[in-house]
Amino acid sequence: MHSEFDLIARYFTPAPPGPEAGVALGVGDDCALLAPTPGRRLAVSVDTSVAGVHFPAEAPAEAIGHRALAVSLSDLAAMGARARWCFMALTLQARPDAWLEAFSRGFKALCDATGTTLAGGDITRGELAIGVTVMGEVAPEAALTRGGGRPGDLVAVTGALGGGAGGLAAWQAGERDVGHPLLARYLFPRPRLAAGEALARLATAAVDLSDGLLADLGHILEHSGGGARLEPEALPLAEGLVEALGEARAQEAALSGGDDYELLICLPAERLDEARRRLAALALPLTVIGRLTEAPGLHGVPGARRLGWQHFRGDETGGRP
Amino acid sequence: MHSEFDLIARYFTPAPPGPEAGVALGVGDDCALLAPTPGRRLAVSVDTSVAGVHFPAEAPAEAIGHRALAVSLSDLAAMGARARWCFMALTLQARPDAWLEAFSRGFKALCDATGTTLAGGDITRGELAIGVTVMGEVAPEAALTRGGGRPGDLVAVTGALGGGAGGLAAWQAGERDVGHPLLARYLFPRPRLAAGEALARLATAAVDLSDGLLADLGHILEHSGGGARLEPEALPLAEGLVEALGEARAQEAALSGGDDYELLICLPAERLDEARRRLAALALPLTVIGRLTEAPGLHGVPGARRLGWQHFRGDETGGRP
Repeated sequence: MHSEFDLIARYFTPAPPGPEAGVALGVGDDCALLAPTPGRRLAVSVDTSVAGVHFPAEAPAEAIGHRALAVSLSDLAAMGARARWCFMALTLQARPDAWLEAFSRGFKALCDATGTTLAGGDITRGELAIGVTVMGEVAPEAALTRGGGRPGDLVAVTGALGGGAGGLAAWQAGERDVGHPLLARYLFPRPRLAAGEALARLATAAVDLSDGLLADLGHILEHSGGGARLEPEALPLAEGLVEALGEARAQEAALSGGDDYELLICLPAERLDEARRRLAALALPLTVIGRLTEAPGLHGVPGARRLGWQHFRGDETGGRP
Repeated sequence: MHSEFDLIARYFTPAPPGPEAGVALGVGDDCALLAPTPGRRLAVSVDTSVAGVHFPAEAPAEAIGHRALAVSLSDLAAMGARARWCFMALTLQARPDAWLEAFSRGFKALCDATGTTLAGGDITRGELAIGVTVMGEVAPEAALTRGGGRPGDLVAVTGALGGGAGGLAAWQAGERDVGHPLLARYLFPRPRLAAGEALARLATAAVDLSDGLLADLGHILEHSGGGARLEPEALPLAEGLVEALGEARAQEAALSGGDDYELLICLPAERLDEARRRLAALALPLTVIGRLTEAPGLHGVPGARRLGWQHFRGDETGGRP
């Protein structure tokens, strides 16, 4: 086992970061020492991804590494925060070197792509689980919470929906080609960090779509008060989803499937054009799917049921923050 | 299971903290939003405590909660940092209400005692493991690292040694009275936060004693260079340790036993009186146990072997940061 930890230490002990990374002291001491930007709020989120609960244990190691970080970074995106640092608490049993190498490659590639510096961590023996703490920064007045939505605000989502559930369904049906568009969405979700920053001063409320549109919109209503009317026919469905699942299940995947890691935002109608213009620069569509209402409750949606393919992240996991 | 998570949510959703806590937004949104003190470094450490690896699964729930936080806070103490915030990633299977209540009581009591605000977390189903991220603050010039020790510096430890290993031995021998002094040391370690702050501008290097004196002094030497000469007869042994284990095993427990969560510091001899004066105000002794040397290696210690009672935190866990 020792060689395994030596390997992990090698894979995960990055070169000393440059001064722009804000790491005064990195991996190797009792603590990391970080230099936060004065005047910014520090946005922090913690997520644990457990094999067999949040992802299939046999998923490609590169995807496991990517995904464990992506689900945490998605929480930063939902606050409009810029990613700065992450810490990884890794629990695992013996794994082949090639697995460890691929796992760390997936994790680090997403660090690089998002400007996140791995500043420390912890390795423990046990069933495979990856705990990730992410830290980002946001100007106090720009932070996006779940609580700012107002009646009349449009409800809109970035990108396309249902790809997470559709990809998991494909995996469970035996699909193993990571180039498969739905499977790629499930295994390599892209946290919408740039979109979150771009929308931060336009949106009144935001949440990332981890538990499914209905559940996550429910979080918004819980914090903002009031209700919402959805137009289910307006939902932007992931490419290939209808072909794979048929129309009814595709609709359900988009409403309740989860694991999409798109952003759901609320915003006044007069800011829609500006929001779309900003996201166009990121090649990301923004689709209006409904409106907040004074009347409490969710309207316009036929009673949605939990989908059978969701057993990797059922109710009992407590959901994602 | 749902009721369990409801319970945990209730136990761990604290009252909104006051403005002095620096929490702009607490538990319940995508991220917590923290307000770091301008000009301070942020000290961050992550530790995972796994049942059967880092503590006996049947240990009292209150101790498990206390201990999971204590081992992380001890890393802040070793940097001379003041504790500010913590995040908990809890993985567990169904537990009785009384267990959950006691676990959260132990965790929160240590939060209160150390001025640490629980600002967020994550709950997942699986084998019992507690991941804790702690954040503290320290003035840049006051941060204590492992790398500042210089030949001639005294090597000193706070408090008493061997209590962690002695307490675990008592547990393994069937002792269940948490009032037993050694068992209390093992189950309810006290992170030396106030001592770390008091010593921050006096010590040249510091580490907390989690892996055992010899291993942790090794970390200092690795970062500071040079070697050390110890005077094993000077080691301050925990109360009752010799009576419980006999002289030879007591000495070994103090040298290699780990889980003491005292601080080991290096400091120039002329600062010893001032350091002792400051710790006296905390009713904490500071004992000189050796000196750093130009010559590399560890001198004055008979070849120390790993102790048989250490199986809860053997080499394969990778040690504590």
